[in-house]
Amino acid sequence: MAFSSKVNGHASSSYRPVVTLGSINPHIRNVEYAVRGELSNRANEYAEALASPSSSPTNKLPFNSIVSANIGNPQQQPNLAQQPLTFWRQVAALTELPSLMDDEAVRAARIFPADAIARAREILNDVGSVGAYSHSKGASSIRKHVAQFIQQRDSSAPRAVRDAAAYSADPEHIFLTTGASGGVQLLMQVLIASPSVGIAIPIPQYPLYSATLSLYNAKTVRYELNPSDDWSLDVDALSASIQAARRDGTDVRAVVVINPGNPTGQCLSEANIADLVRFAHAQRLVLFADEVYQANIYTSARPFVSFKKVLRDFSQLESQGGKAKTDEERRIADEVELVSFHSISKGFTGECGRRGGYFELVNFDPDVLGEVYKMASVSLCPSIQGQIGIDLLVKPPAPGEPSYELYQRESQFILETLKERSTKMHKAFNQLEGVSANEAQGALYLFPAVRLPPKAVQAAQKEGKKVDEFYCLAMLDATGICVVPGSGFGKMPHERNDGGVDMFFRTTILAKETDAFIERYERFHKEFLDKYRS
Amino acid sequence: MAFSSKVNGHASSSYRPVVTLGSINPHIRNVEYAVRGELSNRANEYAEALASPSSSPTNKLPFNSIVSANIGNPQQQPNLAQQPLTFWRQVAALTELPSLMDDEAVRAARIFPADAIARAREILNDVGSVGAYSHSKGASSIRKHVAQFIQQRDSSAPRAVRDAAAYSADPEHIFLTTGASGGVQLLMQVLIASPSVGIAIPIPQYPLYSATLSLYNAKTVRYELNPSDDWSLDVDALSASIQAARRDGTDVRAVVVINPGNPTGQCLSEANIADLVRFAHAQRLVLFADEVYQANIYTSARPFVSFKKVLRDFSQLESQGGKAKTDEERRIADEVELVSFHSISKGFTGECGRRGGYFELVNFDPDVLGEVYKMASVSLCPSIQGQIGIDLLVKPPAPGEPSYELYQRESQFILETLKERSTKMHKAFNQLEGVSANEAQGALYLFPAVRLPPKAVQAAQKEGKKVDEFYCLAMLDATGICVVPGSGFGKMPHERNDGGVDMFFRTTILAKETDAFIERYERFHKEFLDKYRS
Repeated sequence: MAFSSKVNGHASSSYRPVVTLGSINPHIRNVEYAVRGELSNRANEYAEALASPSSSPTNKLPFNSIVSANIGNPQQQPNLAQQPLTFWRQVAALTELPSLMDDEAVRAARIFPADAIARAREILNDVGSVGAYSHSKGASSIRKHVAQFIQQRDSSAPRAVRDAAAYSADPEHIFLTTGASGGVQLLMQVLIASPSVGIAIPIPQYPLYSATLSLYNAKTVRYELNPSDDWSLDVDALSASIQAARRDGTDVRAVVVINPGNPTGQCLSEANIADLVRFAHAQRLVLFADEVYQANIYTSARPFVSFKKVLRDFSQLESQGGKAKTDEERRIADEVELVSFHSISKGFTGECGRRGGYFELVNFDPDVLGEVYKMASVSLCPSIQGQIGIDLLVKPPAPGEPSYELYQRESQFILETLKERSTKMHKAFNQLEGVSANEAQGALYLFPAVRLPPKAVQAAQKEGKKVDEFYCLAMLDATGICVVPGSGFGKMPHERNDGGVDMFFRTTILAKETDAFIERYERFHKEFLDKYRS
Repeated sequence: MAFSSKVNGHASSSYRPVVTLGSINPHIRNVEYAVRGELSNRANEYAEALASPSSSPTNKLPFNSIVSANIGNPQQQPNLAQQPLTFWRQVAALTELPSLMDDEAVRAARIFPADAIARAREILNDVGSVGAYSHSKGASSIRKHVAQFIQQRDSSAPRAVRDAAAYSADPEHIFLTTGASGGVQLLMQVLIASPSVGIAIPIPQYPLYSATLSLYNAKTVRYELNPSDDWSLDVDALSASIQAARRDGTDVRAVVVINPGNPTGQCLSEANIADLVRFAHAQRLVLFADEVYQANIYTSARPFVSFKKVLRDFSQLESQGGKAKTDEERRIADEVELVSFHSISKGFTGECGRRGGYFELVNFDPDVLGEVYKMASVSLCPSIQGQIGIDLLVKPPAPGEPSYELYQRESQFILETLKERSTKMHKAFNQLEGVSANEAQGALYLFPAVRLPPKAVQAAQKEGKKVDEFYCLAMLDATGICVVPGSGFGKMPHERNDGGVDMFFRTTILAKETDAFIERYERFHKEFLDKYRS
């Protein structure tokens, strides 16, 4: 029965379906996306089984909840459950139902502070209604606020020159997007002109990048981050990868940098960024700066510095990154093409479900800006609540405003909690046999290395699985904790001489019950090692 | 100065930018998107000038407001300003700020009816928080409601068989999307396996389709709707287009049908749809049914009937569309691959800014469903407020519930208003010299034909513009009314023997001040004809 597996189907004719694995776009078939793969599906099945306690499989599960440590989804219920910022949700509710602003009972009860009401009115003055399409680049008042935010952020960064105008941003070069990923996909599509185009991505990387390159049939040029130096970006290693690809005929056009790093949590130094910018200029490469974790910084020794700030500083006379500048280098500020991405999904806001992001294009040809705008128009506009999220992200309550103190308290609490959890998990990992992890300087993840014995490798082979998948599936089965194997980020297990491997996995630092998380993981890891010990 | 036009740029070096019109993806360059082109940009400029009355250009404008009749954006302020449904916004506000549900003052003031509170709780029980990512296909409870809606809609359609189970839908075959357009783009990408793949689209068409086909480098197979029969779909004409394309080596895989029609407002008869389904089966074509206007129906003589309903009816013994069925035909129900799209942006809801939509896949290979799911995962999930919009669309307040009457009153008022405006505009158009328009059976648009004299054609040529663009730009300059020329929908001006043309434009029927709209348009049209009369 050729079509016995067809959905809805009980056909016995000779009809051949049009759309089959063999006939669809082969580049879609090639896309790999590990963050939501077999592990995530199995975790969903367990969660459903736990939710209906009458069903028999539940009784066999050795845990009573699923901890989704596989995705940076801070507000997920019930085991992460980061609380939204009160000011955000007040403004959002008022824009949804503006009559609340004029309701006598609501006013009398002082449910909404004056600055939330003022902000809702300001936003509605521009967008009219959250039910209307906005300008395809995003509401113009919000893009202006983004430009002000960028200038303010960069002019108050460490070692910024005095003149704030040096860090100006143009609202017309800013596009609001459906999360940062919407912008990444759009710009990759612009850049990839033929199958010979290559884009350099870090290994390990966030799989959006490899997936998008597969989808648009571009060449993936991999460069390895340095695990023995806090996953820093080694420009020489990057250069070697790019030269090798170019020798093979690949038209390498851009370098993706994720800073702070995902999955690796490093935060690049200003000198490292300056070297990268110089390199991009010398090699004619567009810089894709994924800076969505810029607010997730856990160590004052390594503050976040934006690519835009470093780029603009090249126009200054002063030396940079410890090196003197040539006249040629001073032109870098006006020549290197840079895209910077930001998002409301991460940081201390964690508002993933609104799908809000933006990118800024720096030094891009205006005709190309026109093409990007045209493509944004085809998708009409990003969701208005996502855009409003961007407005709130870039323009939080100011000192003296009624919501200022609560906003500060809530956001500081979230950041401190994340840092505590990260430190606790990092310490616990490093006390376990065969596990070592770098401290997270930023972002929402730890990426521990795990040494596994040969018998574990053999057991994985027997099941036809990558050994890191095998380990993570075993972890899920034993603990209900769902993480992502390193191979999902392009970081494959490294074979050792003794037949064992060094493998990686990524876990978020978002689990509410950190101690229980660690306890469950530790027990699993010890039992796993005992089971497969030689 | 080679780079004098470069954004941010005052470089004088020999640096060659990486990203230029010459180097980007050529398929992006080829995309045409008329709904937001020169006309829309000029309208934006006028709107800005009107908003700052001190600036000099305003004084010269012969109108005091812009009427955006170019996009179906019902809630746009100030000239369309369709009011959102109260129930929708109550539920949305409660999901944004759940503490409102428990606030004593809010409860005492009875601001939120019990069914809005219950719905908000039900939604939050599933999604946890509007700030969290959902399942990539959309929240599971909402997809279940969509499946119930489809079954209910189809089993209560005219001439439906008695057994509601015949019209069942599977929540696992339903994907929530970022508006309908997000789904269209995703599925086109799946279908387009190589540059020889072709998709048939109606002429005139909604430019999302031609733009998406250009972007993914597929062949556009055009089939003409019949203007002299209310823009009905002539299956013979469609067949001729497809056969011609196949003779030329095009692998035609799918037919797009927009029903009710955009820009043309027709609503297909059940017999017409049945013929199309037969044809799709005989020719192995996937049916792309764009049914986003299914709630915008203005004549009881032509009710909306879904493709899914007609498809499922093929499994019945009864004759269909007036024709008896062969055994072969009865298998159609389980064999023709159908995608149906729906949206919250149109209908009487008009909630464009939330970006909510869904599609249902019928008779698709389960492996292909897996690939579609994988691709949905790369984009994480559609906005939660868009998903909530879908929940409210498919599950409105039921009789007996507190919000039922208000919801009915509001939605009926919107539909009646749309019908009134449509009728008024249709009548006015047909009274003008050289203008004729079909009545809208459905959707949000009129697509009048305009006969222009040779001198108008010559004047357009002199300015290097298409004559319909020339006419629409003149309309904007004279009246502030922004519409879209027929060529933007692929319907080119038709040259006449006398050197004149018959051209088309699309206007929405959304303008709040319909009489003023008509008056402004009439004066312009008469003056335009007088100016260019031979």
